Amino acid sequence: MKRFRVAVHIVPRKGLLDPQGKAVAGALHTLGFSSVGDVHVGRHLVIEETATDAAHAERSVREMCTRLLANPVTEDYEIASVTPA
Amino acid sequence: MKRFRVAVHIVPRKGLLDPQGKAVAGALHTLGFSSVGDVHVGRHLVIEETATDAAHAERSVREMCTRLLANPVTEDYEIASVTPA
Repeated sequence: MKRFRVAVHIVPRKGLLDPQGKAVAGALHTLGFSSVGDVHVGRHLVIEETATDAAHAERSVREMCTRLLANPVTEDYEIASVTPA
Repeated sequence: MKRFRVAVHIVPRKGLLDPQGKAVAGALHTLGFSSVGDVHVGRHLVIEETATDAAHAERSVREMCTRLLANPVTEDYEIASVTPA
């Protein structure tokens, strides 16, 4: 069994409202960053996981996303990376 | 001027408490994911930015992080990627 570090991005589903992103974009414009367009705000999770190999670690984290971490109605998730810890 | 999509990770500074990560790790253990170790929860931002080149886009986003997006006392940020939009 080896230790892996799995990074996950959980973001608001495309086409749904992203009020936090809109708020950040507005604040950046107010500060003078006029070249900013849309901003999207999601979560970045790093999960330390013990597994036999990287494929198992990734599969396990996908199950965590489905069962707990991501809201299936409003959010999408993607595994950003799986690296040995 | 070209459009870029800059992805940023903002995470609790190492060594500081990460209560949200601890809560997620506890919930995963309760659900039966016993192979999970530490969990770290941060933010994942995607900023659409108009700039002359990727280096300028990245520099501009670094300034946004310093001035607004990351708390300099408790958080670290890193530019995860700069891609043409």
